[in-house]
Amino acid sequence: MTLPSPAAVLIDLAGVLHVGPQAVPGAVRALARLRESGLPLRFLTNTTRSPRGAIVELLRGLGFEVAAAEIHTAVLATRHLVRARGLSPHYLVHPDIADEVGPSSASPDAVVIGDAGPHFTFERMNRAFRLLMDGLPLIAMARNRYFKDPDGLTLDMGAYVTALEYGAGVQAEVVGKPAATFFLGALAELGMAPADAVLIGDDLRDDIGGAQAAGIPGILVRTGKYRPEDEGDGQIQPAAVVDDFAAAVERLLAS
Amino acid sequence: MTLPSPAAVLIDLAGVLHVGPQAVPGAVRALARLRESGLPLRFLTNTTRSPRGAIVELLRGLGFEVAAAEIHTAVLATRHLVRARGLSPHYLVHPDIADEVGPSSASPDAVVIGDAGPHFTFERMNRAFRLLMDGLPLIAMARNRYFKDPDGLTLDMGAYVTALEYGAGVQAEVVGKPAATFFLGALAELGMAPADAVLIGDDLRDDIGGAQAAGIPGILVRTGKYRPEDEGDGQIQPAAVVDDFAAAVERLLAS
Repeated sequence: MTLPSPAAVLIDLAGVLHVGPQAVPGAVRALARLRESGLPLRFLTNTTRSPRGAIVELLRGLGFEVAAAEIHTAVLATRHLVRARGLSPHYLVHPDIADEVGPSSASPDAVVIGDAGPHFTFERMNRAFRLLMDGLPLIAMARNRYFKDPDGLTLDMGAYVTALEYGAGVQAEVVGKPAATFFLGALAELGMAPADAVLIGDDLRDDIGGAQAAGIPGILVRTGKYRPEDEGDGQIQPAAVVDDFAAAVERLLAS
Repeated sequence: MTLPSPAAVLIDLAGVLHVGPQAVPGAVRALARLRESGLPLRFLTNTTRSPRGAIVELLRGLGFEVAAAEIHTAVLATRHLVRARGLSPHYLVHPDIADEVGPSSASPDAVVIGDAGPHFTFERMNRAFRLLMDGLPLIAMARNRYFKDPDGLTLDMGAYVTALEYGAGVQAEVVGKPAATFFLGALAELGMAPADAVLIGDDLRDDIGGAQAAGIPGILVRTGKYRPEDEGDGQIQPAAVVDDFAAAVERLLAS
């Protein structure tokens, strides 16, 4: 895909604006510059260990100007889907988002999995497995492979989704990135078509691959979970690859 | 495959002779009958939560006559492979087999995974993931999907192998069933060719599929993890399907 002069910008959070509790160098100032341009923005995150309020708080604490309503989270997209379908799920999620999704049903009709992180105990995995073996569908908030923590790459929830799929012989439905509906939902709020927007992300498969499959050109940044091998990937070719978020903004404002 | 009159019998343990701490009804007597026939036997197990001594003890406690040397375990096959290749692995295994495999290396050149069960903590999974991301190969003692516990089907280590494969983008080498080398190793001790033997198992894919891919006809029993859907599987067609181990022995001695 080639890089157009966009009418809206979709921005991934973790690995692009910040890595764990640290802002990516230059990103705070670059976001302020992008705001000055007047381009409408939406932030998309597959992070499902924290509720949206905590994500806003983290970003503001690092100096980023963001409003809760601008942030599209996989958790809230999942809550929306669950309500739209009238489901009563069993939740295998991080305790910190329990309030955001509500309690597990005593007689569930679906299994919903988020990034439970250290709370992915064998007991909780086996409970979900047994429900899947009883025929319940599996809904995954995301299926990312890993993310960048300050001390290194960390296994993300996609590994556990794949574990349950293999064990129970099922296929999960993914709600967050790279699902096209997740990107298109954010654009719909802005009244924009995919070709009017660009996405900035650090995940070749779930950010860039997902966005481009939905018709949105993607800019890959060399921060966060980026690894040099990503540029040699034979299948996904980003519209542009730049050093970091600041460079992406510069590129967009110059185009 | 058709069922020959065999010269040796390979027998899966969990789900065939016993389910957890309970003998399958009629199995103790059937094994004694098989012994009387004089056919040489080998027991094959992908159970990697217990050392061989504990498996022998369990079986004898249930009334089965077995010798340790007759039991081929995926743990010991893995130890053999590690030594033959001169590897110094990091082990993600159940603490009960720590003595059987030895300690993890401080500077590992491979990751070896067994069925850690409740010890599959996120922290241990993430440690293994990071080593795989550094380029270490992944060796899996087995990759079974589930096994039968007295209280229901239980998620087996294959789910966690698949999780690490997905997270780190690698492919595991499997040592136990369904690897042909595992079946053929047991036959080699007896000096038998695959077509001379039969295997009795409850796992359509890893027992029957694995054995038959190695040229050994498989008898599927309707105990343990057996599920009626197994008989409609389009890909793996057992040489015979019988109710339980006693029926399998009757069938063999009559043939």
